[in-house]
Amino acid sequence: MDEFALINRFFTSLGRHSHGSQADTVIQGIGDDCAVLSVPSGQSLVVSIDTLVEGTHFVAGTDPAQLAWRLLGASVSDLAAMGAEPAWVTLALTLPAADESWLKPFSAALGEGLAYYGINLVGGDTTRGPLSLSAQVHGFVPHGAALLRSGARAGDLVCVSGTLGDSRGGLECILNADIAANDYLLDRFYRPTARVSLGQHMRRYATAAADISDGLLADLQHILTASGVGATVNPDLLPISTQLAAHFDNETAKRWALSGGEDFELCLTVAPECWQVLCEKAPSLAAQLTVIGVVDTEPGLRLQTAEGTVSAAAAGFNHFASETRNS
Amino acid sequence: MDEFALINRFFTSLGRHSHGSQADTVIQGIGDDCAVLSVPSGQSLVVSIDTLVEGTHFVAGTDPAQLAWRLLGASVSDLAAMGAEPAWVTLALTLPAADESWLKPFSAALGEGLAYYGINLVGGDTTRGPLSLSAQVHGFVPHGAALLRSGARAGDLVCVSGTLGDSRGGLECILNADIAANDYLLDRFYRPTARVSLGQHMRRYATAAADISDGLLADLQHILTASGVGATVNPDLLPISTQLAAHFDNETAKRWALSGGEDFELCLTVAPECWQVLCEKAPSLAAQLTVIGVVDTEPGLRLQTAEGTVSAAAAGFNHFASETRNS
Repeated sequence: MDEFALINRFFTSLGRHSHGSQADTVIQGIGDDCAVLSVPSGQSLVVSIDTLVEGTHFVAGTDPAQLAWRLLGASVSDLAAMGAEPAWVTLALTLPAADESWLKPFSAALGEGLAYYGINLVGGDTTRGPLSLSAQVHGFVPHGAALLRSGARAGDLVCVSGTLGDSRGGLECILNADIAANDYLLDRFYRPTARVSLGQHMRRYATAAADISDGLLADLQHILTASGVGATVNPDLLPISTQLAAHFDNETAKRWALSGGEDFELCLTVAPECWQVLCEKAPSLAAQLTVIGVVDTEPGLRLQTAEGTVSAAAAGFNHFASETRNS
Repeated sequence: MDEFALINRFFTSLGRHSHGSQADTVIQGIGDDCAVLSVPSGQSLVVSIDTLVEGTHFVAGTDPAQLAWRLLGASVSDLAAMGAEPAWVTLALTLPAADESWLKPFSAALGEGLAYYGINLVGGDTTRGPLSLSAQVHGFVPHGAALLRSGARAGDLVCVSGTLGDSRGGLECILNADIAANDYLLDRFYRPTARVSLGQHMRRYATAAADISDGLLADLQHILTASGVGATVNPDLLPISTQLAAHFDNETAKRWALSGGEDFELCLTVAPECWQVLCEKAPSLAAQLTVIGVVDTEPGLRLQTAEGTVSAAAAGFNHFASETRNS
């Protein structure tokens, strides 16, 4: 048995654990040419593939446990943005060597993440080469109920979940020795939490959704482009954590909330009357969201500033995307 | 728009073309956080993910069109081994730079391959880093009808499709300047053809199947292990192409047929009475297959030689796998 066959033992073992309500949808998991899977009746399948590359998405020497959580968090966040229930994941792992001191903490953390999200590892491919990790996640959503980017209408409120800019704050703590490390901010960077439950609940209220991976402005622009509309955002309304506010000046915190990326919160558009219903009927959901702007008929993305309304590009946000995904 | 956003244009364009009988199963293709897909009623979903890494699976400077064909061929071959009908593919592409002279021939060949296999590109992720390509293929098979590795029974005939060893012959032509290049052998290496139609037809005749990616002995051993049986193979029965026989001596050709890998033919086990029916009712299928051995109750893999029956390991085939997949 070669050393890469040994690697497969780690993942075959993980694949034996069943997670979540969809565990019985795995007919044949790891161990054949393909996995054989069953999509429940009345459900659509939603899928997304994401890659993390050493030197591009993380620095050499990053804790493998943190990589496992980031890979899963970033991938499952795409399911959350569709309002989908996570079901399965496949993993394509490229490693320079079969290093057990890397594989043990990675697979242990991956196992924890699979259990946390209720997602089953059903297949993979392990190859030798420069360190890189691709995950494809699969989830279910009732037919016709997926939250698409294309449903936003003029007049809708723009909402975001949680707080924004924390992940970038954590990254700054890592990159700059003169910034005091903050466990909360570091955790938001290393271990993003996909908003799975919120996404599923928002299927009945939102007109469109995207997860905030490239930064709020970039991801909101994806919604606006797909929907053929524009929006105006008030930066003073951005939800900023007390930890981010305590560590960085107000302008910096706002800039990261607008464009920092990798928060893996949700950006949603909600018709005003639905927002009203949401606040009345589901106050615990409403409490997870902050209204930060409104959808307009005029294409483009604008910011409300002390000097009036200016285009986001004119305000210096013309390079939104740190990376662009084609799914 | 950054340079990697330009890359996505190539694939967004490819994603707009519909291929095969399952084109209408794509509800939302490239352009949202996830693809939204519909698995036809009565069908199971089968999935497999495969990675090609520069320096491990191909040398630097390999023609990108050939990479596209190899990636698709190797991936779709896993669907063929399950008896599945190809439906969708997602692509995770890591590139050192957004080099149009690489991207144009790659995406053109990928488009041809998608059309050839009737498979729809539904998502992807493009990232910067050392050249590497991962594809996840998705297909359909009627509930309960997937060809698994675990179904072989003692007495079954061991069959293989096409001819074996050609891909390794092509690789030798590339690596050794003193071997005359042969277009047929090179094409078998660069542009493997997955046996999709054969796999689907063999659902009704075969007890088990695997595709020959790691070499016949390694992949047959996967079937035997999963089924809890053994087999005896007669190397004199191995199907060897006239081109391979013309270019290499008999012993070399046989060795590559047994262990060369990347042929992407199918290895199947068929009960003798089903083989009889197959020959009578579907002679055109039988003509694509060669019986090379028989399944035994005794675990392990044996070869019939002039000196009698010896274990494959004793005959020098103890390192079967050039690479091991965990799905």
